[in-house]
Amino acid sequence: MSATDGQKIAMRGAGYYSANTVGAKYVIDKVADLVVDAVARMPRLANGHPFAIADFGAADGGTSMDMMRRLVGAVRETEPHRAISITYTDLPHNDFSTLFRLSQGLLGPSTDMPLADTPALYIFGSGTSFYRQVLPDNSLSFGFSATAMHWISKRPCMIADHVQAVGASNAEREQFRTQALRDWETILLARARELRSGGRLALANFCIDEEGHYLGHTTAVDMFDCFARHWRDLLRAGRISETEYVNATFQQFYKTPQEFAAPFRDPASSVSQAGLRLEKMFTMVTPCPYAEAFRTHRNAQDFARAYVPTLRSWSETVFANALDSSRPANERSAIIDDFYNAYEADVARAPDEHRMDYVHCVTQIVKL
Amino acid sequence: MSATDGQKIAMRGAGYYSANTVGAKYVIDKVADLVVDAVARMPRLANGHPFAIADFGAADGGTSMDMMRRLVGAVRETEPHRAISITYTDLPHNDFSTLFRLSQGLLGPSTDMPLADTPALYIFGSGTSFYRQVLPDNSLSFGFSATAMHWISKRPCMIADHVQAVGASNAEREQFRTQALRDWETILLARARELRSGGRLALANFCIDEEGHYLGHTTAVDMFDCFARHWRDLLRAGRISETEYVNATFQQFYKTPQEFAAPFRDPASSVSQAGLRLEKMFTMVTPCPYAEAFRTHRNAQDFARAYVPTLRSWSETVFANALDSSRPANERSAIIDDFYNAYEADVARAPDEHRMDYVHCVTQIVKL
Ligand SMILES: C[S@@+](CC[C@H](N)C(=O)[O-])C[C@H]1O[C@@H](n2cnc3c(N)ncnc32)[C@H](O)[C@@H]1O
Ligand SMILES: C[S@@+](CC[C@H](N)C(=O)[O-])C[C@H]1O[C@@H](n2cnc3c(N)ncnc32)[C@H](O)[C@@H]1O
Repeated sequence: MSATDGQKIAMRGAGYYSANTVGAKYVIDKVADLVVDAVARMPRLANGHPFAIADFGAADGGTSMDMMRRLVGAVRETEPHRAISITYTDLPHNDFSTLFRLSQGLLGPSTDMPLADTPALYIFGSGTSFYRQVLPDNSLSFGFSATAMHWISKRPCMIADHVQAVGASNAEREQFRTQALRDWETILLARARELRSGGRLALANFCIDEEGHYLGHTTAVDMFDCFARHWRDLLRAGRISETEYVNATFQQFYKTPQEFAAPFRDPASSVSQAGLRLEKMFTMVTPCPYAEAFRTHRNAQDFARAYVPTLRSWSETVFANALDSSRPANERSAIIDDFYNAYEADVARAPDEHRMDYVHCVTQIVKL
Repeated sequence: MSATDGQKIAMRGAGYYSANTVGAKYVIDKVADLVVDAVARMPRLANGHPFAIADFGAADGGTSMDMMRRLVGAVRETEPHRAISITYTDLPHNDFSTLFRLSQGLLGPSTDMPLADTPALYIFGSGTSFYRQVLPDNSLSFGFSATAMHWISKRPCMIADHVQAVGASNAEREQFRTQALRDWETILLARARELRSGGRLALANFCIDEEGHYLGHTTAVDMFDCFARHWRDLLRAGRISETEYVNATFQQFYKTPQEFAAPFRDPASSVSQAGLRLEKMFTMVTPCPYAEAFRTHRNAQDFARAYVPTLRSWSETVFANALDSSRPANERSAIIDDFYNAYEADVARAPDEHRMDYVHCVTQIVKL
């Protein structure tokens, strides 16, 4: 029953992601200050090595493009002639074409010089999961990742009566936690091998913050409870089977700041032994741009019609893949359409209750 | 009227290329001996640098996968622990997902260990045209390219009464030649910057050989004449306009061995000055696998039905893009279908006349 890897995690192609996730860009822009500051304080590289940057789980690279410009600018400020590489990583099925086209200015109406036209900047894609070593030993100067590492490497079990670990039974949640902590160690150890001495990571990960807030749960409503409720409605209406109901399980886990920090607090941990140190950690809430816009325009229909497709962009595959593959494709898409339409109607009815604030834990990590 | 870059060159996705171009794989397998031999004689790299391999114009990487295994094996034979990188390059719209999935064993029925599972091997994609510098200075150990560099960087003019430079008027052909020779220099100078001292290139390029043979022209019939004739039939039948007729112009040029060698023969050329030397050069003809199979099975229908789709896989975009973009999509695909169907009927009628032998010029180049 459990998926053995992250293959089913998918986003829709051709710039869809970037246009629909303004919030994700806000997060990255906020982290950019930290990144630029960290680069200025980094030790000089030996001659003949490029300053290697990586964006782990980059999707189409759209949301991090402005940050990359600033990062490249910061490197060139200290070393004007240093060659720079940016490796955008994601799962193999990611839309790397859109990524390359975006960076070459072949998509969208941008008036900026295309990032790829920066002298001595070399852009690469990698379809290697961040659960494996993506880059050669000691080659990485700066690793970045935003809103990607909550995707765990496998589902330890299905969640019987909810869709996300936040709503799972205690026993289910502990299985997810165990998997997520092991995965965090795997991620860090792979990065420790890739980083050169003095290299840094800046990671903005979804979390459960000090106040118990997490994505879509910063007020009384809970976005994942909404997903679960509408999915349950389909079960009750006989539209989906019990198995299909159970199978809708996000392969995700939101760690607390304590859990992010744990491997660094223990000097005997494999992560500490690999030379990684936690330099900075803080949580931040990024207000839902759709809910904020609604406060101004007050048009409930417009809000619902903008808000739910954003949720759909990253959640759809979870529900679509939960459906029995023997169902005809048009039946499957009808169910999924009905599911999001019901959610949309809900939002239009009670617009003030819905918002998907982002809740991140930002960690800055150095390799000694 | 002329395209300003290579953007319109496209192949169809999801393994289509590899499955339909057995011939391309034969070519690469033949070059592999040379490659393995060259690697064995290469100077050792300094510590801390990966042995960097690049495949320029790799498409989905399927045809070079076996060669890459041998190349990686040859590197590891001399240096068992050397980190290796392979950068697969192509135009930005290339299907990099298929490439990553192939290398990770996620497609196809292969029983081999996935290339990506080789220890300390790192695989990247680059959507940077080979007319630009793709990799940092002095970083490349071995550059490979097969059957890609006949795509020139722009069309200097449309070919009025044919589709390819081989059938152009003298004046048109000279314009294509000038462009192609300039492009060859651009390619070599970019590679000269990328290569480390002692690094090598092995390039298998389409050519016009010592006997005047070239792709699809090794006997009395000429494949490009067939394309031109069927395209002209559509003009005569009033199916396409004069402009559409003229616009079907392959952005390609086949150089002779003399032309490939010219920059190396002049010690004052920018290519020689950049430290590149021609170590080996030879031409080779690779028999059309479909025509060879036909000699055994003698089923004209089967031959035509296998042969023409292969031609279509790499030529279709040229004809499709020649059509007026104001035509409805279904009208355009009907014209293109009719075009290839007519060609297929032709082949079925006179199967012994058709064959697409590959004619390559292989160059091995070293950077001093
Ligand atoms: C929400 S998107 C974030 C995109 C971008 N970083 C941003 O913040 O806008 C998460 C991305 O992580 C990718 N991802 C999930 N698991 C991954 C893994 N194991 N390795 C690499 N990428 C992964 C997904 O494919 C997706 O593109
Ligand atoms: C005939 S395929 C060859 C694929 C593979 N090398 C083989 O031999 O089987 C030619 C490839 O060259 C690519 N190509 C054409 N112009 C290019 C350029 N300027 N830069 C990089 N790739 C290019 C095309 O997109 C296509 O994938």
